[in-house]
Amino acid sequence: MISISDLKTGSRRALAKCITLVESELPQHRIEVTKIIESLLPCDKKALKIGISGSPGVGKSSFIESLGKLIVGDEKKLCILAVDPSSPLTKGSILGDKTRMQDLAKDNRVFIRPTPSRGFLGGIARSTRETTFLAEAAGYDVIIIETVGVGQSEIEVASMVDIFLTLHLPNSGDELQGIKKGILEVADVIAITKCDGTFNHTGNIAKKQIETAIALSHGHRKKVEVFCTSAISGSGLLEIWRHLIKLYTSKESSGELDRVRKEQNLHWLEVEVTTTIINYLKNLKAVRSEIEAGKKQLNLGKTLPSLIAARLRQKLEGIFDDKIRSDASIDG
Amino acid sequence: MISISDLKTGSRRALAKCITLVESELPQHRIEVTKIIESLLPCDKKALKIGISGSPGVGKSSFIESLGKLIVGDEKKLCILAVDPSSPLTKGSILGDKTRMQDLAKDNRVFIRPTPSRGFLGGIARSTRETTFLAEAAGYDVIIIETVGVGQSEIEVASMVDIFLTLHLPNSGDELQGIKKGILEVADVIAITKCDGTFNHTGNIAKKQIETAIALSHGHRKKVEVFCTSAISGSGLLEIWRHLIKLYTSKESSGELDRVRKEQNLHWLEVEVTTTIINYLKNLKAVRSEIEAGKKQLNLGKTLPSLIAARLRQKLEGIFDDKIRSDASIDG
Repeated sequence: MISISDLKTGSRRALAKCITLVESELPQHRIEVTKIIESLLPCDKKALKIGISGSPGVGKSSFIESLGKLIVGDEKKLCILAVDPSSPLTKGSILGDKTRMQDLAKDNRVFIRPTPSRGFLGGIARSTRETTFLAEAAGYDVIIIETVGVGQSEIEVASMVDIFLTLHLPNSGDELQGIKKGILEVADVIAITKCDGTFNHTGNIAKKQIETAIALSHGHRKKVEVFCTSAISGSGLLEIWRHLIKLYTSKESSGELDRVRKEQNLHWLEVEVTTTIINYLKNLKAVRSEIEAGKKQLNLGKTLPSLIAARLRQKLEGIFDDKIRSDASIDG
Repeated sequence: MISISDLKTGSRRALAKCITLVESELPQHRIEVTKIIESLLPCDKKALKIGISGSPGVGKSSFIESLGKLIVGDEKKLCILAVDPSSPLTKGSILGDKTRMQDLAKDNRVFIRPTPSRGFLGGIARSTRETTFLAEAAGYDVIIIETVGVGQSEIEVASMVDIFLTLHLPNSGDELQGIKKGILEVADVIAITKCDGTFNHTGNIAKKQIETAIALSHGHRKKVEVFCTSAISGSGLLEIWRHLIKLYTSKESSGELDRVRKEQNLHWLEVEVTTTIINYLKNLKAVRSEIEAGKKQLNLGKTLPSLIAARLRQKLEGIFDDKIRSDASIDG
């Protein structure tokens, strides 16, 4: 049994056990998690949630380790969750071991955990969002959710954090073409990594080019700061950390933080409801047998998928209409 | 009333009326469409279905007009459907008028139509797939589905055609970075457009670069031919048309065409069933009120979206369990 008071006071052990339950698919674990979450609600603690994305090789671990040291140096408790959409089966291998961030891993103010990315619609699982909630309730001041720059994962991570930061290599010209428009859209802060030694100069060129691209794309709609950083020399890191705090504080005082978090909750609700309805209904025997019968007709060329779906809908209507007639209370 | 025999003999007027019904959301139109489709099933006619994608400015209309003339010159009846995912509201503005392909539009062996891209999950609507079926049943020999190179639309068009062709400008180096890996994955044939005058040389360079990129990406898995073309001089067009026929014939005789079409039908079924279930259940009063009640609690910070979804699932289970107990027949 997990102690709620241990969890509330930030016990790493209690949090870890709780996340294991969150990631489980056993019904009894789900019941336990629900009880724990309900006992933590409403939660008046607020963490600064930062999404960090970057392609493999961009120096993400070194960047997070350097930034993380500044964060704990400020007496803040830090939680790092790593989502790896490219390996759903290994439950996120990018942080499978903690060797990537050796100093942070030893610090007892830091909690590091990979988070599985399996889930319906290729999405980031419910577990990542619930884990974020648990870390917040456990009193972690800063939560970093890191992801590799693949497909949909960045957009999804952006939908669960307060500030989204993307990392880029100090390449100019050619490589800039590769910065997808979608990433510029979701980024609040951009860091160019490895701006040291011979790359100092190209880093500055890349900064100007990215700033131009942002200005062309956003106009005055959104201000995005670009920083040249080096995990080796440490340059740029303190500036970024200060900028993140400034951004967060200003969003909080303007009420934007609250508004955006409410929107994010509605988005999460939409995803959860869709997933739940589909998973539940598709596994119903009545639905499965209707679909299987349809597939046979389809293979014989005797129907079209849209016609099968229409029949399925009629069947669902029959089930619900009957139910509603026999039990008016469900409409309440 | 639409005459089935007119439709079967390829009347453009009958086909146009039928597609209008397909695009309608009125229940009585849906009933009519279902009857028409059922009377055409099973359909033993087979069209060569070609997907063509390219960014704005790549010269898509000129390319299709030139290719289309070769197709009708071979005594084939041609249907062109244009999907514009960027403007769901205007129902696909890229072919809103037929002025883009003036010569083809006048030819009575050619049927040109924009097709709406509205639909659940940002997808291409059921109507595009049903329209393709109708055109095939109406005896069109070649069906071109064109789309602009935006996001998910190419992947979806690729999932409903026999051969997918992508168009690229004769830029080399820089621009090549912009060719998304996803497009190379779905392309069966690649055409470089505007290879005339001063672009002849860069076109050849681009061809070599794309061939290298494909070799790196696919290895021996898949052979993709790259053609330099010009809608002005007509060069490369006849070669592409012959190549398309050769590809199609070889896929047909090897049984691959049949296998892939069956897979595509299963994918379509998956999309239709998901859309149908979600749309139907989310609009049920019992489900809506459960979600609305959940939203209020969510705004007060008293629950999480995953907990709301779990409650909704319990409610659905209640409805179905009761129904199954009272009516064992739905399990058959």
